[in-house]
Amino acid sequence: MLTGPVEIVGTGLIGTSIALACRRAGLEVLLTDTAPDHLRTATGLGAGRARTPADVPQLVVVAVPPDALGPAIVAALDAAGPDTVVTDVGSVKAPPLDAVGAHPSRSRYVGSHPMAGTEYSGPLTASASLFDGRPWAVTPGPDATPAATRTVEALVRLCGAVTVRLSPVEHDRAVARTSHVPHLMASLVAGTLAAAPPEHLALSGTGVRDVTRVAGGDPRLYSQIIAGNAAEVAALLTEVRARLDLVLEAVADDDRVGLESLLGYGQAGTRAIPGKHGTAPQAMEAVRVAVPDHPGELARLFADAGDSGVNIEDVRIDHDPGRPVGLVELDVVAERAEDLRVALESKGWTTHR
Amino acid sequence: MLTGPVEIVGTGLIGTSIALACRRAGLEVLLTDTAPDHLRTATGLGAGRARTPADVPQLVVVAVPPDALGPAIVAALDAAGPDTVVTDVGSVKAPPLDAVGAHPSRSRYVGSHPMAGTEYSGPLTASASLFDGRPWAVTPGPDATPAATRTVEALVRLCGAVTVRLSPVEHDRAVARTSHVPHLMASLVAGTLAAAPPEHLALSGTGVRDVTRVAGGDPRLYSQIIAGNAAEVAALLTEVRARLDLVLEAVADDDRVGLESLLGYGQAGTRAIPGKHGTAPQAMEAVRVAVPDHPGELARLFADAGDSGVNIEDVRIDHDPGRPVGLVELDVVAERAEDLRVALESKGWTTHR
Repeated sequence: MLTGPVEIVGTGLIGTSIALACRRAGLEVLLTDTAPDHLRTATGLGAGRARTPADVPQLVVVAVPPDALGPAIVAALDAAGPDTVVTDVGSVKAPPLDAVGAHPSRSRYVGSHPMAGTEYSGPLTASASLFDGRPWAVTPGPDATPAATRTVEALVRLCGAVTVRLSPVEHDRAVARTSHVPHLMASLVAGTLAAAPPEHLALSGTGVRDVTRVAGGDPRLYSQIIAGNAAEVAALLTEVRARLDLVLEAVADDDRVGLESLLGYGQAGTRAIPGKHGTAPQAMEAVRVAVPDHPGELARLFADAGDSGVNIEDVRIDHDPGRPVGLVELDVVAERAEDLRVALESKGWTTHR
Repeated sequence: MLTGPVEIVGTGLIGTSIALACRRAGLEVLLTDTAPDHLRTATGLGAGRARTPADVPQLVVVAVPPDALGPAIVAALDAAGPDTVVTDVGSVKAPPLDAVGAHPSRSRYVGSHPMAGTEYSGPLTASASLFDGRPWAVTPGPDATPAATRTVEALVRLCGAVTVRLSPVEHDRAVARTSHVPHLMASLVAGTLAAAPPEHLALSGTGVRDVTRVAGGDPRLYSQIIAGNAAEVAALLTEVRARLDLVLEAVADDDRVGLESLLGYGQAGTRAIPGKHGTAPQAMEAVRVAVPDHPGELARLFADAGDSGVNIEDVRIDHDPGRPVGLVELDVVAERAEDLRVALESKGWTTHR
């Protein structure tokens, strides 16, 4: 049961967003930040009040940059009351647990990691709804008490997020796979475009845009995050390099069977990603619609799609050179694709598979 | 000037779609296919009539699988009238030109490559609008006449696509970069997910979904395509492997400056991709909106966004586990983002940066 007060250490995007979500739920929120202007901004946004020495928080959330995390968690445990639970929201979970080490209050530390955030930073970009529907890893160490874990999971619920319980080591292995290595690979692909002649890039379609999108993120932040998970990232990236060598070999030897099997393994991987709402992966199908490229047309398309009663699971807009028409791809569960196509055609849209 | 008749050799997805676009423009279309059922389906769809020996096409479009392309182009040149132009729509352009070699009619062959297609195949999936707004590479060899090139470019226009003129070698280098290597890298990332524990995959966000999406394509088709461009793919992939080694080294040595510089190079690459409509890349900003996950809500969102007068350049829907709310990201040019946010908030939407 989370009744507050909740202390937030570090009033950046994530910290202030958690503070706002706690305030939305009526909890008392105490704010701490080494940067007085951030603290002023966050209090000005109604995220809480500055902590005083007399305050005894029920839960402390440490939300400082990766490199400052360990000492800030230890400081929070040192200053905590006898029942205060401490969590953090860092992107990597083994290093902060190591920093806590044999601290006498280690049973009341439970790490966590909300899978949310934007390319922006600072309290002004915060939002109480940042975590709505997002996975939020909760990663108790071996000495954490069940009660402390429950308190952190109550925070997750209060923020509208969904707990994914993992050990710290498992968490770090998981994010190497679902976040850090994909980011690095996207960055390597994007790097090949940096020096390419413009007329080559004119052939760019949705594929390369999708593959490289995450590489647009802040290099400084991602280098900190990845460096914090160096061992897991290096292990997985070494595996990937071994498979890359196999691909290169298959291409050089015109070994189509080998190439097809490597591509088939990748195809199987895309099917392993869970569907929306954590359900088993579902077969999806894209309905492609030609849409005139001006305001209002997308609204008309979605109104007509809404009338069809078929739920749109994902949308992509193809950025096409030179013509005032866009191609919109609507992903729906495969068995409803034909219904949507028929409904849209009946409203005058040109669709194709 | 394209007046017809146009002969289509190979009535699969691409061939039949071109045939339908030519019919839409009122041209006579002649169809050829070694598979009688495909030919029957295509004529049944109104894509044209079966070619007879007496027909003399103005333009022959060879649209057969990669491995059959060379001989089919040579056969078309052999059978052509003295003014007939021959093109093909293969994904790689140096091999068909090699196949044509010193053919006496080589001046009337001009290769091409529409940047369109779907994960489906066969005439039943064809559409006259498949090429709307898409780039379409036109790749004349050294002996092609300007008149032959103009005829192929007239076909591109008629299909609603946009010509990108490149030499065959440049084309193959370009698609290695914008299509084949990104596909292979996406496949390698997706491969790391294939054997991952489900609780790790529960942390998957939009990033890894975007990076791996193209890897869902047919392994057999892509192995043919990539094998056809082996030299260019191998050259670029070798460069990528060298940079991957640098990344691994930077991660292992905790070399943050090096890692940051590699990530920065990737970030620069994402900015090099041309914007919509072939314009210079523009600074985009994402407006994030929480949207209840049922039919009609997206329609309401796009209606409200349409009313704001701000054009939506791209859309992403975050697939979130466990909660009936989705996060929709609307990409707009950066200087209009605040206008859109204000407009949506005034209609009761919760937005954040």
